[in-house]
Amino acid sequence: MRYKLVISYDGTTFHGFQRQTKLVSIQGTIEEALKLIFKKEVLIKGAGRTDALVHAVNQYAHFDTDIYIPPQSLKKVLNKRVSPYIYIKEVEITDETFHARLSAKKKEYRYIVSLNEYDPLKANYQYFYPYKLDIYKTKEAMTYIIGTHDFTSFSKKKEDNMIRTIESFELSIENNILTFSIIGDGFLHNMVRIIVALMIKVGSGKIEPKEVINIIESKNRKLVPWTAPAQGLYLYNIWY
Amino acid sequence: MRYKLVISYDGTTFHGFQRQTKLVSIQGTIEEALKLIFKKEVLIKGAGRTDALVHAVNQYAHFDTDIYIPPQSLKKVLNKRVSPYIYIKEVEITDETFHARLSAKKKEYRYIVSLNEYDPLKANYQYFYPYKLDIYKTKEAMTYIIGTHDFTSFSKKKEDNMIRTIESFELSIENNILTFSIIGDGFLHNMVRIIVALMIKVGSGKIEPKEVINIIESKNRKLVPWTAPAQGLYLYNIWY
Repeated sequence: MRYKLVISYDGTTFHGFQRQTKLVSIQGTIEEALKLIFKKEVLIKGAGRTDALVHAVNQYAHFDTDIYIPPQSLKKVLNKRVSPYIYIKEVEITDETFHARLSAKKKEYRYIVSLNEYDPLKANYQYFYPYKLDIYKTKEAMTYIIGTHDFTSFSKKKEDNMIRTIESFELSIENNILTFSIIGDGFLHNMVRIIVALMIKVGSGKIEPKEVINIIESKNRKLVPWTAPAQGLYLYNIWY
Repeated sequence: MRYKLVISYDGTTFHGFQRQTKLVSIQGTIEEALKLIFKKEVLIKGAGRTDALVHAVNQYAHFDTDIYIPPQSLKKVLNKRVSPYIYIKEVEITDETFHARLSAKKKEYRYIVSLNEYDPLKANYQYFYPYKLDIYKTKEAMTYIIGTHDFTSFSKKKEDNMIRTIESFELSIENNILTFSIIGDGFLHNMVRIIVALMIKVGSGKIEPKEVINIIESKNRKLVPWTAPAQGLYLYNIWY
């Protein structure tokens, strides 16, 4: 039997999503709770990793078991046993063709930048950039990111296939708080944070919007030596 | 020379405002930073204590020193040395008649209750009460709190003078999130959290609104055995 989970978490107190032998992770915390419930080891597969401090509004995972627990009961007992910083929003039985990572068609990440004065109550949830930003320059630069490109310039790691398709990249602004929303078929390591850092550099006037075209084409990470901090990033949604 | 500070903090990681010998407090953290800056011990006086997990949007404090540092420079260097969960919003030189606690005329606290499904990203910032609430009953009960009363029924501790004046008590609702705002000349220990807990009990139908009048008059804490959790509470403002 395959169970599908939709998970939300505050990444602040975890060493990322992925299970680690000695550090507290989101995956490890959920697996420990499942072990207590099913009375045997249960391993979950997430749609993808998120780094330390990164949050999720909708992360997906699945696991297989031969013990049946009604999904609504499992949701209840799992949320009781898991950390207050993790919440299982949905539990569902799914057919075995569903795979949290391999079946994912596209993902949305959001990144929050505050142009306001620092607020300690948002320390873990926004990146504070209390300076002037030319939104029109940032918005122009964002259009060059959309499409199918080799994103080598925007990846922390070299992978076999560096080509990804960005379907949309939008920016909304409310009370001086910028929310970037980026949807794509997949993302390289740190890709969203590196793209957002570049968009801020463009808005600050240090780089011309059109330069983004050259930076993509150059396939050279050294041209984007910045990575926006982890706490502003949210895995927002996954489509299957 | 007397300096006035306006301080904002996320109370999650602190053992309350007040300095403690072995535990990390907000006051202690600020005093340590001031000691490094002034190169001698500096003790601050806060407008009042806040408990562990309680936040502040505007807490006030003062301290005396014979070393002059321009307020804007002090603000900058103090915020660099203090925790990311504390932010000094204002530094000002004030005359010596100003006393953060004794000169305070009234205070505003806010308390946030969410009627939505649990959100782990708000675990430290709201009290989740995902049940039905009759807002009209709660609003009626709130009117009985306003005025000058002996608040013995709403205090964790017995003090010499249990009489306080509540000037206003308002409730705003947005996206199923209730924000209580209470303004008074002073508050007993846990008073806001005990009042809010009672207002929720009334809204849930377990206690009739008019019963609040009897509860105040009875001066009996046992009639209100609940205290709403600390993380929903914010010291919001102080007037001098």
